[in-house]
Amino acid sequence: MKKIINAPERVVAEMLRGMELAHSGLIRVIHDFGVVVRADAPVQNKVALVSGGGSGHEPTHGGYVGFGMLDAACAGAVFTSPTPEQMLEATKAVDGGAGVFYVVKNYTGDVLNFEMAGELADAEGIQTDYVVTNDDVAVEDSTFTAGRRGIAGTIFVHKIAGAAAQDGKDLAGVKEIAQRANANMRSMGMALTSCIPPESGEPIFEIGDEEMEIGMGIHGEPGVERKKIEPADQIVDEMLGKILGDTVNFSGSEVAVMVNGLGATPIMELYLAYAHVADVLKREGVQVWGRPYVGEYMTSLEMAGFSITLLKLDDEMKGYLEAPCSVAAGRPF
Amino acid sequence: MKKIINAPERVVAEMLRGMELAHSGLIRVIHDFGVVVRADAPVQNKVALVSGGGSGHEPTHGGYVGFGMLDAACAGAVFTSPTPEQMLEATKAVDGGAGVFYVVKNYTGDVLNFEMAGELADAEGIQTDYVVTNDDVAVEDSTFTAGRRGIAGTIFVHKIAGAAAQDGKDLAGVKEIAQRANANMRSMGMALTSCIPPESGEPIFEIGDEEMEIGMGIHGEPGVERKKIEPADQIVDEMLGKILGDTVNFSGSEVAVMVNGLGATPIMELYLAYAHVADVLKREGVQVWGRPYVGEYMTSLEMAGFSITLLKLDDEMKGYLEAPCSVAAGRPF
Repeated sequence: MKKIINAPERVVAEMLRGMELAHSGLIRVIHDFGVVVRADAPVQNKVALVSGGGSGHEPTHGGYVGFGMLDAACAGAVFTSPTPEQMLEATKAVDGGAGVFYVVKNYTGDVLNFEMAGELADAEGIQTDYVVTNDDVAVEDSTFTAGRRGIAGTIFVHKIAGAAAQDGKDLAGVKEIAQRANANMRSMGMALTSCIPPESGEPIFEIGDEEMEIGMGIHGEPGVERKKIEPADQIVDEMLGKILGDTVNFSGSEVAVMVNGLGATPIMELYLAYAHVADVLKREGVQVWGRPYVGEYMTSLEMAGFSITLLKLDDEMKGYLEAPCSVAAGRPF
Repeated sequence: MKKIINAPERVVAEMLRGMELAHSGLIRVIHDFGVVVRADAPVQNKVALVSGGGSGHEPTHGGYVGFGMLDAACAGAVFTSPTPEQMLEATKAVDGGAGVFYVVKNYTGDVLNFEMAGELADAEGIQTDYVVTNDDVAVEDSTFTAGRRGIAGTIFVHKIAGAAAQDGKDLAGVKEIAQRANANMRSMGMALTSCIPPESGEPIFEIGDEEMEIGMGIHGEPGVERKKIEPADQIVDEMLGKILGDTVNFSGSEVAVMVNGLGATPIMELYLAYAHVADVLKREGVQVWGRPYVGEYMTSLEMAGFSITLLKLDDEMKGYLEAPCSVAAGRPF
């Protein structure tokens, strides 16, 4: 295992410390609970957004905490759901009296724990609600998931629901637009290599020197097909074929497009893949809206591979994607 | 070789096509010459900045083309200097009558070719000048370099000299502040793994499963020492020890800090390393100015490793680092 770490059991705590030192005006960290909180939280009378999940997907989710996106992010151990106690602590830290909204990727542990946190918050008099994102079209059920998995499209929900909350929508309104974004987005990923969680020190799956897996999950959950590596254009064709063949009709619409690197994919390859994504979308009558999101938004440690997300937009979602925000993660939305 | 590509000989052309499609309002690409140009170039009566180098270091340099940074970037083949013809084409495309300034990383091919391009431009009546960046303290001479190598600190020169040109400085003024930035910055890198250039399909060096190399160059040039992987804090201590022990006295000053991932290093590890960088700098009386730059600024394809850069600032450089810019690369400066 080749990693720049001090001790496997301290990676999350030390990462959070580095994030806090690097972004001190933007965030603070509740270290006892592994929770990243917007520096000025709680914001009174604003619906607060909380997300979270296993660590190892950086900049997801802590990188999206700040004005106009998340109020808090719960960092679990690597690839492990945060606990209800973490989520409750985040909830209490950000509640400004207008309720707290959870953005939850569809993994069984995340969903159960956020549901439990909601019950605990209710008992303390804090109103909560949530959306479960499930944008991954690859498989219907998976290792850690009933139904479809939530992957990189979740970042679009952070941005749109976060801007809606910043704009003054109430809890029901934030939930409605979060659900609308989730219902209109579809993603699919692929992987060339595994990654190695620091605690186990072992790859999460084995894959041959000439192999790739289409539809691989962000924790190495099996995808659609394992086969010999194909040319990039053919890989993109397969991924977009599955996305465009699903139940959202993207043709004729304006669509936000994300080409998301999983950690070790050179930026060169992401742009190279985007060139063909743009060609296919043009041919299919799908209009790329604004500047596409090409970069690392939701990673899997040092996994090589990428995902594509399409989000069919309406005017309200476009406005919220364009709204100002201030967060630590790379690309300014 | 596991890559998301179509054909090794087309990777640079296809990447540039993807960049142009993704950032059409910001840049255009002169495809016959592999040159990324600011969309509104030439800007009349502004000194134009041109940089370039081998591809494989993305977002360097094309990602830094736009308002307030570079006017053009020349993309060579992977890890191969661009040709004087590319540089001349870039020069002619961006010259707005106030001269063209080259930011050149210290590699023999880059320096020779930019010098030749300057002579060719002179013959066409375009005034040019240049700075050679050499921020890497690791070694004095290297595989492709006489003197010290130019690495990630070069991005600070792009920003500061770019903002100075945008601010109306003349060619001599831009050169002066570019030299001042270069003289006040020091960098050092380390690598855990090699990368594989697409055309050769082979790793550029071999390194053991438990080994790292301190001082490794961005093309795999030998560094200071090859040894067993150490804890992150110890690695940071060695890198900062060499930087702080060099000829710039950073103590007591405000300093811009970059922790730059080389391609496959998880964001988790970059923040974890930054935590100790911040501790050491505090102990040494070095004040971190503003928000540190933690992310991928100058990569080596899928190499795992990172570099640290310190830049000792004065008020003018701070102003130019803060000045607005609009470029494709991740972090907004």
